[in-house]
Amino acid sequence: MIDLRSDTFTQPTPEMKEAMFRAKLGDDVYGEDPTVNRLEALSADLLKKEAACFMPSGTMANLTSILTHCPRGAKVLVGNESDIYIYEAGGASVCGGVVYEPIPTQSDGRLLLNDLEHAFPEDMDDPQFALPALICLENTHNRCGGVVLSLEYLDEIQMFARKKKIPIHMDGARLFHASVSMGIPVDDITRYADSIQFCLSKGLCSPIGSMVVGSGEFIEKVRRWRKMLGGGMRQAGVVAAAGIYSLQNMIFRLQEDHQKARGFAESLSRLPGIKVNLETVQTNIVLFEILDPRFTWRTFQHMLQQKGLLVSEMGFGRLRAVFHHDVTFTEVDEALTAVKEVLAEGPTLMEGDLVVGGDKPIAR
Amino acid sequence: MIDLRSDTFTQPTPEMKEAMFRAKLGDDVYGEDPTVNRLEALSADLLKKEAACFMPSGTMANLTSILTHCPRGAKVLVGNESDIYIYEAGGASVCGGVVYEPIPTQSDGRLLLNDLEHAFPEDMDDPQFALPALICLENTHNRCGGVVLSLEYLDEIQMFARKKKIPIHMDGARLFHASVSMGIPVDDITRYADSIQFCLSKGLCSPIGSMVVGSGEFIEKVRRWRKMLGGGMRQAGVVAAAGIYSLQNMIFRLQEDHQKARGFAESLSRLPGIKVNLETVQTNIVLFEILDPRFTWRTFQHMLQQKGLLVSEMGFGRLRAVFHHDVTFTEVDEALTAVKEVLAEGPTLMEGDLVVGGDKPIAR
Amino acid sequence: MIDLRSDTFTQPTPEMKEAMFRAKLGDDVYGEDPTVNRLEALSADLLKKEAACFMPSGTMANLTSILTHCPRGAKVLVGNESDIYIYEAGGASVCGGVVYEPIPTQSDGRLLLNDLEHAFPEDMDDPQFALPALICLENTHNRCGGVVLSLEYLDEIQMFARKKKIPIHMDGARLFHASVSMGIPVDDITRYADSIQFCLSKGLCSPIGSMVVGSGEFIEKVRRWRKMLGGGMRQAGVVAAAGIYSLQNMIFRLQEDHQKARGFAESLSRLPGIKVNLETVQTNIVLFEILDPRFTWRTFQHMLQQKGLLVSEMGFGRLRAVFHHDVTFTEVDEALTAVKEVLAEGPTLMEGDLVVGGDKPIAR
Amino acid sequence: MIDLRSDTFTQPTPEMKEAMFRAKLGDDVYGEDPTVNRLEALSADLLKKEAACFMPSGTMANLTSILTHCPRGAKVLVGNESDIYIYEAGGASVCGGVVYEPIPTQSDGRLLLNDLEHAFPEDMDDPQFALPALICLENTHNRCGGVVLSLEYLDEIQMFARKKKIPIHMDGARLFHASVSMGIPVDDITRYADSIQFCLSKGLCSPIGSMVVGSGEFIEKVRRWRKMLGGGMRQAGVVAAAGIYSLQNMIFRLQEDHQKARGFAESLSRLPGIKVNLETVQTNIVLFEILDPRFTWRTFQHMLQQKGLLVSEMGFGRLRAVFHHDVTFTEVDEALTAVKEVLAEGPTLMEGDLVVGGDKPIAR
Repeated sequence: MIDLRSDTFTQPTPEMKEAMFRAKLGDDVYGEDPTVNRLEALSADLLKKEAACFMPSGTMANLTSILTHCPRGAKVLVGNESDIYIYEAGGASVCGGVVYEPIPTQSDGRLLLNDLEHAFPEDMDDPQFALPALICLENTHNRCGGVVLSLEYLDEIQMFARKKKIPIHMDGARLFHASVSMGIPVDDITRYADSIQFCLSKGLCSPIGSMVVGSGEFIEKVRRWRKMLGGGMRQAGVVAAAGIYSLQNMIFRLQEDHQKARGFAESLSRLPGIKVNLETVQTNIVLFEILDPRFTWRTFQHMLQQKGLLVSEMGFGRLRAVFHHDVTFTEVDEALTAVKEVLAEGPTLMEGDLVVGGDKPIAR
Repeated sequence: MIDLRSDTFTQPTPEMKEAMFRAKLGDDVYGEDPTVNRLEALSADLLKKEAACFMPSGTMANLTSILTHCPRGAKVLVGNESDIYIYEAGGASVCGGVVYEPIPTQSDGRLLLNDLEHAFPEDMDDPQFALPALICLENTHNRCGGVVLSLEYLDEIQMFARKKKIPIHMDGARLFHASVSMGIPVDDITRYADSIQFCLSKGLCSPIGSMVVGSGEFIEKVRRWRKMLGGGMRQAGVVAAAGIYSLQNMIFRLQEDHQKARGFAESLSRLPGIKVNLETVQTNIVLFEILDPRFTWRTFQHMLQQKGLLVSEMGFGRLRAVFHHDVTFTEVDEALTAVKEVLAEGPTLMEGDLVVGGDKPIAR
Repeated sequence: MIDLRSDTFTQPTPEMKEAMFRAKLGDDVYGEDPTVNRLEALSADLLKKEAACFMPSGTMANLTSILTHCPRGAKVLVGNESDIYIYEAGGASVCGGVVYEPIPTQSDGRLLLNDLEHAFPEDMDDPQFALPALICLENTHNRCGGVVLSLEYLDEIQMFARKKKIPIHMDGARLFHASVSMGIPVDDITRYADSIQFCLSKGLCSPIGSMVVGSGEFIEKVRRWRKMLGGGMRQAGVVAAAGIYSLQNMIFRLQEDHQKARGFAESLSRLPGIKVNLETVQTNIVLFEILDPRFTWRTFQHMLQQKGLLVSEMGFGRLRAVFHHDVTFTEVDEALTAVKEVLAEGPTLMEGDLVVGGDKPIAR
Repeated sequence: MIDLRSDTFTQPTPEMKEAMFRAKLGDDVYGEDPTVNRLEALSADLLKKEAACFMPSGTMANLTSILTHCPRGAKVLVGNESDIYIYEAGGASVCGGVVYEPIPTQSDGRLLLNDLEHAFPEDMDDPQFALPALICLENTHNRCGGVVLSLEYLDEIQMFARKKKIPIHMDGARLFHASVSMGIPVDDITRYADSIQFCLSKGLCSPIGSMVVGSGEFIEKVRRWRKMLGGGMRQAGVVAAAGIYSLQNMIFRLQEDHQKARGFAESLSRLPGIKVNLETVQTNIVLFEILDPRFTWRTFQHMLQQKGLLVSEMGFGRLRAVFHHDVTFTEVDEALTAVKEVLAEGPTLMEGDLVVGGDKPIAR
């Protein structure tokens, strides 16, 4: 099987496992795990922020960040196509009493200042309005096809946020894909955000974990919420060791994943009946649509699966292929062959043959 | 002053006060206020539902309904231009752990089935998605200019909701305006909703109060949430008496308010520099825009105020005039004169002369 | 029927109704009801605080106060026998994400400083502990039999709270009973609290309403929560007028209610098989127990009801008689006669004859 | 250093690490990690329940269980000395809108049926009362010194809970200590609970993780809450492998830890100035008090630390020593020697020399 459903499917490498095996461990609930402490320091350094906190998942990393920034009753402004809004089960409303206000997401991942402006009530003292307390950006942007936010835009929105006196949180699940794609240090990006989460398990090959990064005071509060939610783990250094390995060894190779994606997308774009927007293929994600009327996205996805190729669904009839460490360049070619074969052979099953929920496709 | 900011500004009439004065009272927290009990029975009867519950406000009526329909963690599908989403401070997220999903509102107040469909995840078992548990409609629709939802649409959406196995709540703050405008009994409308709130103080002239109406079991739960939120009142019959008077005497006269609105809107539409969409003027609300470039909506609103005419702001640069019991037909003419005079005299103040927040305009 | 279940059962007097009838009204949601504004100013003045806010109920008054004082995740320290903890449906946890920590209530209504101290964790930085953000006192104390907190105690606890840097909220549902009982101005009491709620409908005879009183900044926030919960009412002046009348005319007569209670309690204490703690009878409440083994509290309560006397249940097998404006001194004698008759006649019904829930006794 | 602060400090053994190294991994967010699936099946089998779910911590295991059992607005009945109530930051109130009702904890860890009964309101329909929806037990009971709940008690409380129609959740962080201590299979205990959480990292030596176990339907809901809170982890099999190893190899050796505790406690009890209640030393925990007036618990704890012995604080001036895999029998003797030396040498520091918070003692 060639698994392009997500870059979360990567297996830890032998060297990474070796690092995990050898890590010095302590009880991180007591703050005594030296490996976790080292990963947190390393993460803060890389992003040029004061502090960082290790998390079991990106969902908790985002949730604790929102809980810290937003008091009860506030609004968090999120993209209507953002993973935070769509794939995180509404946690900020449930655990935080925070209202999500979805802002239209542009095809390049941006939230327009005009649209954000509209979320601020004319009269901030009027008690009928929930008040915005945070803007969330996503970089790279998953449902926009892995696009990278430009520094010009980040500068613009930072000025806007400062004028409005509210912070910016960046969901950087694939943050390093952005910096690698732009060829700049990651802190050239993170300077525009007050807090950032990035995933160690998306592209960077760690088995578990995400980091929240921000000011020292912010991270202290994040730790409180992590404890309450149940994210405090004991000898967490055993997985944090993988995270250190990822940060030290797995960032620059993301460039290869971008090349695989680019190659796949360009070949795909030349196939009749397939639509790819090459402009959005900036990192390791390729979104495409099957326009050939003999197929639906569902039947196409399942027929690819029968050929040994797994891709995921990304809404609006789109399919997603994500490229990562565990897919070789040869497998990229094989994946293309699978697509061509399905197109050539024509439909072997129909919508009615499929049962939704059977394989629980999860998009992120 | 001619006050067209809202139909909530009406004063109780002498007859209504008389009814309040004479009402038999008890402690409604113990369920022993006979006047409240009578109002609740009357309301349920009118809407042909099993039971009703008296509330201090429409906000609490909507909030308790959402809390009853939606378990913690569910999504409530609301119009992005609905009063529930915009003007009720996000209560369902704060008090209920419920996620608002705003659905695009059509200019005629409808939420398209297609857009609603999109809010249901492909795989309902996938834990990353909050699940829809309620659709909220608004009828008549305030920010669409008081438009009435057609019975065809209500029938359609009820079938959709049943197929999806989720209930419909109707925010009928101005429910009777809809039935009067359509010339049909109100239960011809409410049969399409599982629960309804209507206001006694909007158009019907009562000083205080809204009703939640629905099944007996539903209302029992609504009472629990009302108590928790602090909506249980003691000798509430003193205001419920006004509500009874409203239901018995103030519904049919809403027709007059519609006539005033229609007359005002038609005259307004003939003035240069003013834009009115006459199609949406179906009840007692007139939305209009000042296109004349000498004015902004803010300066225009304030200059009208200087002429003795109060109107409110309704987003997107629109002004709103609401017609009600306490505005005579003569005053409608005077209001038009005020508009004409401001247009004739030209700008006497500029944006820079205005301070936002000074008079806290509240839209509902 | 002589109704001693609660002092919430009082009917508005003709003079009070007259005041309601004549009140100048506006839309209080816009802050334009002159009578509400007057009641709020009067309340703040009386208690010598900066501002006040009118509420539909004491429950909402307490809830908005807790929401304002306590951020999400904080603990509120409440008496384990307080009305806030027992009778308000847990609103602060539901609407505020606030943890109740019940502190043992002494028989004189006090929470011991030692017990409060115990609620503060050794290490305030340790994220496993919710942190106290508010102390709630109840004065007079309902379930302790209407006892009054001494000024010495209030001084002591204020110093404690200041040392701990957390505010004190006083649930003064029957605040004026305390000041009348002590023969001191009410602000001699309220100076020890940062915020206070008092009821206009308990003893003071208004049909509806409670006030929250505190600093200007505090009250601004309280108004936000009131709106969200649905406590914003339109021409609320119609009931606020009763509140003004209550504050101007009904406070000093509370002395009479205290006399009725005292007389009733003393007579009761002389009856065999009845237990009354006369020390706690300091205001208008009398708690008593039926020790006569022929009765249970339930059968005794129902047999009194058959004699025309209504009393309520107050936990631990205690019955409660509350004295108020609508009970005359003659009726106090008749009430005693009813008790004596039941004792003399002996049991006419047994536990098995009773159905719980039939008359929904509500204690407050 | 001999670390008796907690049994969470254990290091994974080489064999355990080997198992982790070799584990087959997949993305558990997609349900595709075979090792996690195996651990879940194994856990369910052991406890003779239908299903199980892997969690990053015991806090999340308890929190998701409470969220699943208790709807918004319900009460959870917990021991006032339970870890859930004291050490888990009030998560059920924050994330679930659930009210904690602390019930007095007996010295043997029991909650008396009488006290539980008192938490159920006389009239369950009265909306002023939050309603109990869950009873939580703790077994073994940490703050009672590791005591084991008897089967007689479990049988009794199960009958009570069934009569009340509410479920029982068992916080079995140290569940296997109970079964080993009683010499019975663990399912002889778990049959009395509807859901159970147990920790893989307390005593069983795994670096990370807890399990929630219960019915299939229950666990499906638990998974939803886990996702929302951010407990969904990717290649979680890498730590689940340790959990499998723990369940297969580390349970029976708990008997040794009990022996160490017993030996330590008995020797301690013979020292003048030290108080130990030997009756409660049933598993691997020893609570003791320093009665010798030359010391406070704080100075005694710090002086032990200077001798190379770490113990934790457990409230009420008690110190706690927890015995586990990484403490040898020789070290138990050394620990005793340290205690004797401190007693012999007398105080070398005073309260004033200590700074609270410096080493953030965390109790669990």
